[in-house]
Parts: sequence; C-alpha cells; structure tokens
Amino acid sequence: MSYEKVSREEDYNKWYQNLVVNADLAEHSAVRGCMVIKPYGYAIWEKMQAQLDRMFKATGHSNAYFPLFVPKSLFEAEEKNAEGFAKECAVVTHYRLKTNPDDKSKLMVDPEARLEEELIVRPTSEAIIWSTYKNWIQSYRDLPILVNQWANVVRWEMRTRLFLRTAEFLWQEGHTAHASKEEAIQETVQMLDVYSEFAETFMAIPVIKGVKTENERFAGAEDTYCIEGLMQDGKALQMGTSHFLGQNFAKAFDVKFTTQQGVQEYVWATSWGVSTRLMGALIMCHSDDDGLVLPPNLAPIQVVIVPIYKGSDQLIKIDEVANKIKNELELVGISVKYDNRDTQKPGWKFAEYELKGVPIRLSIGPRDLENGTIELARRDTREKEVLQQTDLTGKIQNLLKQIQENLYLKAETFRDNNITAVNTWDEFKEVLNTKGGFISAHWDGTSETEETIKQETKATIRCIPLNQKAEIGKCVFSGKPSNGRVLFAKAY
Amino acid sequence: MSYEKVSREEDYNKWYQNLVVNADLAEHSAVRGCMVIKPYGYAIWEKMQAQLDRMFKATGHSNAYFPLFVPKSLFEAEEKNAEGFAKECAVVTHYRLKTNPDDKSKLMVDPEARLEEELIVRPTSEAIIWSTYKNWIQSYRDLPILVNQWANVVRWEMRTRLFLRTAEFLWQEGHTAHASKEEAIQETVQMLDVYSEFAETFMAIPVIKGVKTENERFAGAEDTYCIEGLMQDGKALQMGTSHFLGQNFAKAFDVKFTTQQGVQEYVWATSWGVSTRLMGALIMCHSDDDGLVLPPNLAPIQVVIVPIYKGSDQLIKIDEVANKIKNELELVGISVKYDNRDTQKPGWKFAEYELKGVPIRLSIGPRDLENGTIELARRDTREKEVLQQTDLTGKIQNLLKQIQENLYLKAETFRDNNITAVNTWDEFKEVLNTKGGFISAHWDGTSETEETIKQETKATIRCIPLNQKAEIGKCVFSGKPSNGRVLFAKAY
Repeated sequence: MSYEKVSREEDYNKWYQNLVVNADLAEHSAVRGCMVIKPYGYAIWEKMQAQLDRMFKATGHSNAYFPLFVPKSLFEAEEKNAEGFAKECAVVTHYRLKTNPDDKSKLMVDPEARLEEELIVRPTSEAIIWSTYKNWIQSYRDLPILVNQWANVVRWEMRTRLFLRTAEFLWQEGHTAHASKEEAIQETVQMLDVYSEFAETFMAIPVIKGVKTENERFAGAEDTYCIEGLMQDGKALQMGTSHFLGQNFAKAFDVKFTTQQGVQEYVWATSWGVSTRLMGALIMCHSDDDGLVLPPNLAPIQVVIVPIYKGSDQLIKIDEVANKIKNELELVGISVKYDNRDTQKPGWKFAEYELKGVPIRLSIGPRDLENGTIELARRDTREKEVLQQTDLTGKIQNLLKQIQENLYLKAETFRDNNITAVNTWDEFKEVLNTKGGFISAHWDGTSETEETIKQETKATIRCIPLNQKAEIGKCVFSGKPSNGRVLFAKAY
Repeated sequence: MSYEKVSREEDYNKWYQNLVVNADLAEHSAVRGCMVIKPYGYAIWEKMQAQLDRMFKATGHSNAYFPLFVPKSLFEAEEKNAEGFAKECAVVTHYRLKTNPDDKSKLMVDPEARLEEELIVRPTSEAIIWSTYKNWIQSYRDLPILVNQWANVVRWEMRTRLFLRTAEFLWQEGHTAHASKEEAIQETVQMLDVYSEFAETFMAIPVIKGVKTENERFAGAEDTYCIEGLMQDGKALQMGTSHFLGQNFAKAFDVKFTTQQGVQEYVWATSWGVSTRLMGALIMCHSDDDGLVLPPNLAPIQVVIVPIYKGSDQLIKIDEVANKIKNELELVGISVKYDNRDTQKPGWKFAEYELKGVPIRLSIGPRDLENGTIELARRDTREKEVLQQTDLTGKIQNLLKQIQENLYLKAETFRDNNITAVNTWDEFKEVLNTKGGFISAHWDGTSETEETIKQETKATIRCIPLNQKAEIGKCVFSGKPSNGRVLFAKAY
C-alpha cells in the first residue's frame, strides 16, 4: 500500500495512471503497447460485459465468433476502411520458428515458412465478416442478420495509455445486415440508445448522443453515431460508436439478396462497438484523490465488512455477526466481502477498499458488539453513520441505489456546468484554455474549418448532437452561415 | 434444408463435417485453418463457458487478461515449452501497411515498419503470464495466485477439422502459482476433477481420468493429467488437460518468493485448459444420422413448440395455448422457442429441430385444441407421446433430467463395452483394427516401445488411468515386465 499518491490537480494524467496500477486494475505488459488486465479490473469488465450482453440479446442479437486474422486481399477490399486502418496493422508474415543455428538456445523466424498472403491481425472485423455474410445471404428471408462478437482487436499505437489507448484491446463489435436502408438506420440508432442507457444507468455517466462529422467518421461508414462523456479534467471521451455503413461493405464483397419482389439488391449494414476504453471512462469520471469510486451497479464488491478487534475471542464474536450480515445481504443479491484476514490492520483495509472504490464499508468493533450496532461509511460522500444491526438489508439496498443516483447526478451537474456556448473565436480559445469542457458553437459545416480549428487548438468536433436546435448563426471561426451549434472539445 | 446426408457408417468424418455445417454450428472461413463459429454453435459454447466459469469461481479462481502477443525472447525462455510450440507459431513481423506503388488500390507490408523483435501470437500463455507473475510475487503472502483467462490462441496446423483442430481456437487457460509442490499438485488434480465433473454432468460424456506418458506430456510440464472420452467411431478424444509445471517456468522467468521462514524459493506452477474442441466431443459423442443430439444441460433451446394449423384462425388459438405453455416453462428456467413462422411447414420445422438437437419437441394441432392435449417427441429416443396440457411443466422438468441421464448412460455403456483388455500383440492389433475403442494392455514403461507401437498402429497411450490397478504382467509389445495396464487408442 505504499505508493506515490498524486492528486488530480497536481497531475491528472499521473493521477490516472497511478490509480489504474495501484487499484489493481491493469498494468503495462512486456509487450509494447499491450496491457495486462488484472483480476480486479477484469471483474469490473465482466460486469460490464454481462450487462451489455443482456441488452444485446434483449434487442434480438446473438453472439458468434469470426477469425482473428484477415487475409490482406479481403482487408483491402473496402478501400476507405482499409486506408483508415492500414497504418496501424499488425501483420503476420510467417507461421513457424526454428532453432537459431548460431545459438541453439534461441529461436528464429523460419524464412522457409513465409505465408503466401500476409494476414492482418483484425483491427476491426467488417472485412472478414462481410466476406462470410456473402455466403449466408441469398434472399430477404435470410435478413436481418443480428450478430455480435466479443473479441480482442489490435491497432498499433505509438503512444498508449492503460485502457484508453492500447495496441490490443477487448471489445464487442455488432455487425448487422438488413434488407432496407431505413431498417439499418433504425438498428444504428437503437444500438446507440442501448449504449447510452448502459452508460447512464450502469456506469452513472451522462452522455451526449450525436453524429460525427465527416472528418471523425469511422473509415467505411456513411454515418457514425456516438455517445460522448465528459471527464473531470474537462476532456471529452468517446464512449461508444454505432455506424450506418450503407451498402459499402455489401458492394466491396458483392453481397446481394433477392427482395420479396424478386429483385437483386445490395444488403444494408451497420456495425457498433464499445471497448475496454469504457474502463478508462468509468475510472476517470467518478474517482477521487484517494482512489477509485465505483457505481454500485458495476462494483464487483458492493459492500465490504471489516472487523476491528483485539485477540481471537473478539474476532470469533465479530465473525458471527459479520457472517450473518453477509448472508442476509447476499440473499438479496448484494455482493459482499468480509475481510477478516489477520495479516493486515483495519486502517490498512480501510485505505485499501477506498482505493478499490467499494461503495459501502461496514465495520464492527467491540463496542458495536455490545450495542448491536455497526458503522457504515459511504465511499462517494465519505459520510459515516452508526446503524442498528437489525433492518440493515433494506437500508443498504436503498443506499446502493442512492449512491448510484448520486454519482450520476454529480457527473451530470459537472457536465452541464461544463457545456459553454460561445459566439466568438476569442471566447472559444479562452474557454477552451481556462475552463475546458464542451464548447457549443456555430460551425460552417466544412472539413477545412474543422481541420484548422483542430490544428490551432487541438479541439475537435465531438459531435453534432441529436437534439441540436435549429438556430441561425455564424461560424465561430470563419463567420460563414450556420444552422445550428455543434460540440467542440479536447478529447481522449 | 437440402443437404447431403451421410450416415456415420458410410463415412464418419464426412458425417461429422456435414453435421457441423448443416446444424449451423461452424464453418470454414476465408482464412486457412480458421473457423467461423456460427450463432447456434456459439450459443452452445456460451453455455459451456458459463458453467465452467461458475465452477472455476467456486474453486476460488478469478479471471484476468494477458496480451495476445509474446515477444520472441520471452517465448524462448522456457526451452522445452518453446521447442514444443516453435513449429506451429504465427509470427507478427511488421506493424504497418502502405499503399502499393505499383497498384494504388492495393496495400503492401511497409518494409520500414519491421518490428525490432518479432511477436509470437500466443499458442499458450505460460511465458507471458510467468513474466508478469514475476512482478506480482515477492512473499508467501502473495501466494497462491489463482487466475484463469478466456482467450483465443493460435497453433498453425496443416490439417484442420472444425472444432477438433483449427489454427485459431477459443479456450480457457488457468495459470496458478503456489508456495509448495504439494499445493500445486493438489490444484492440478482439483482442476482435473472440475473438468471431469463438467464433462460427465453437463456434456453427458463419461471420461477416464489419467496421467499422460512422457511422450504425450505438455511441453514444459512435469506431469500432464487428462480426461479422455470415447467417440462413436471408437476413437479417443482428449477433452481437457491439467498440468503440474513444477518450478520450470519459475526458473525460466526467475520467479522466487520469500517463505514464512524467510528463505527464497522458486514458485510452483500449474496450468489447465479446455477449448472449443469440447464442441467436437459433444457433437461426436451423442449425435445420430439425423443430426445433433444435445444434452439438455447445454442445449440453447431445450424445448421447441411447433404449431400445426390451417389458416390464421387456428394459428391464433394455438398461439394462445403455446405462449401460455412457453411462459410456464420459462418460469422454471427452461429455455423454450415457439416457432410459429409461416414461411416454413411443420415437417420442415420437425427436421430442422431434429438436426439442431433440441431435446424436446412439442407440437399442437387442431385436435389437440379440442382435447386439451399436446404431442411430445424426445430427440434422443425418438419416442412420442400425447400429454394433457395441464401439469406439463413438472413432466418436462423430469423428462429433461431423464434425457440428460439417458445420454450419459448410453455413452457410458458404449464406452465400457469398448474397453478391451488384451494380453498379446496379435490381439492388440486385431482389436484395434476391428473393434477400436480403448485397449487396456501392459506396457514396459519406455518411450521407445510407445513410439514403435504408435508407428506401427497409430495407437497412442491415451493415459495411465488414475485408478490403475497394480497388476504384474508383461508388456504387450516387448514382453518386458510391467506393473499395470495403460489405455491405448487411436485418437483425434
């Protein structure tokens, strides 16, 4: 538990990096740019996965699995997609090692085992999946196809940051095929809504739903819908994307279907994904200088019980009370850890579970035994209260709900206070440099203006909000006419 | 539903291959040796995963995630392990593609983006995990580490078969670290027991628990424990392995801990895994010439209801009854599909769900509406009976249990009838060629004899059974003395 503590104010990036490592969430591996997700971090990811998976299935999707590798000729078939990912592809060129003749204890790549065609480690799976769908789709009866995949993907990155940007990451990618444009767009929007509901209800992070500009669109998409969250340092984080792919992949892989009227048409596509990046959002949105703050709906341990005792006689009595409480809480589905290890002191345990973001801590000491009481501490507000041991279950159920709501409201207030409407270029730069957050401003709709603003300020258009109001105005940069405000921010 | 039907007797391999494809379980992909696991096949794998995961957690394990890539220098650190896998490694050598100057629509590997050190796509993760554990372990207090990973791995294979042998496959790999040899061996055996319980109780496949000979041992292990099942064609299939790794990986990666007595010692290791290969075992053990036969405990759809009707008036009435039954069954946790699609006829649906191995089929026609009855058909025995619609739930719950047991007993009888004790080399060859199955025979304990037998007959020692009886005898091949019988078989 001895580790370098850095506050958010001192150095936000270092605070984040330290927190991820010290709370046992993840660490850098021996492989450049790749992370190890440690058991505690993975337990949070498993809770996310389970909930998202339920939501995908409730909206009619099934899981499947497609190959890790994409042959180069398939990879390059959809040109924009290929171009978009070409610079960050890990490429398999050989399929065998052999003993190094110069040093028998070493291995070397066997030059005779060169692949005829190189294999790309999937950065995303549209190409391999649409080359497969070609054989699955003949008629309108075969549509829609509603498939999701949980997988690892690789995008070579020079500058990496745990969870937020790593060469290998875990994600889910939905890939659907439809008979009509309308149905495909409906699916794209539906999945954006699923992501938004997940972010707000489970991660307790308020998000803005919007559409990306052409510059920020997924390579190969007609339209990219996104949810954007705001972190405590005023930077935006794209938390999920849902793409309307039009007929681009159907055309690239020649996937046609016979309509009810007997006509041959190209199939319409969507894809949508969220990744272990969400872990980064979860950590950065709620945590404080003492460690992680987890929303109860995603906390692997919702309640921890710590005994405070001298000698084993006291511990035996506390064990009895604690285990009874644990059982009662578990009966209603609350996950509880009773930490009666004798290798660590209560103070150490208090700090440890604060660091790990456990929403509620209960502690029981000798006086509590006498009085039939228990001390409860909330991780989010740090409030403490002494409660009777009876009727604890209902109170804790309510409190977990309250904590979940409180985290959301706190994040929402912060987010709302950090959306600033500006009307001049000076204001824009001033707000961006002093306050940060989302800047709501008029934009002339051109990629050139967007690009110049990015060059000058590092701010990008995070999205054109779905709830954008029609409002005649002038572009904050060029002064040209605009029909509505878009959201700018610096982003992860 | 028009597909080439081949019986097991005609061509067992073709029967298997057709079944996997026609029942929508998996198919070959555009990537040599890699498969696509289709939604129905993946749904079965998900049920396996969920149950195994519960069993791993119940025995104290947590999940984590380690990198897909292993730098060559780490890969070669444990020499035997490296040597064992060197010939089947996919190797990443480059991290970027660029536009092909000779054809702007194509991409090529960018020769300037060559990695300084090649990365091996993990064939197994001992190396990357033990290089990580080195930083996690200082003292006996850090032990044991009980971690499992669900992941994809790649072992380049020239001859592949869906599920049974593919270049990429999905698996879980447990990697544990212990303070003592005894504890590590205990863990190895415990996980073998978990696998065996899973195979017998969920897959309805009886297995023999045993230890591999040195020849068949996992590269880098001190001892490999295994469970072996018997398929309908008389070949054995290794269904899971649990390795006692001794201190081999601790020594290769210099992983030491301070004991309670303050002494520095190398850590003891185990690893254990099962893969999508289990899907192959499940299919081959129970299925028949009409398709898949699934044990209820792993069937994604346990009960299918098919309406038999003329006109929408009848269908509306049947819908009402069917949905009521569906709801009642779902209330007790039975998964039910009501297939009232009007695009297919009942006969087509009957064949379809037989092919897909749904354990129980219910059908409701106009006469059933009049009589308050329903027709039930078992997939395993093909028995049909007409039941009253009332009290159906309890009967179906019992029947699902009976089917599960029946499949196990049938497989057990077959297996037991196909373990043949032989005492001469002629008998050995005779039984192997005519009857197949496990051959229980004396063996002199030498790798040479084992190797010669393999060369001459293709039979290998599947295992030295854990329940081997001490019995003085003579090696069936060499005539040299032996202390007990081992199990030979041809194997997948």
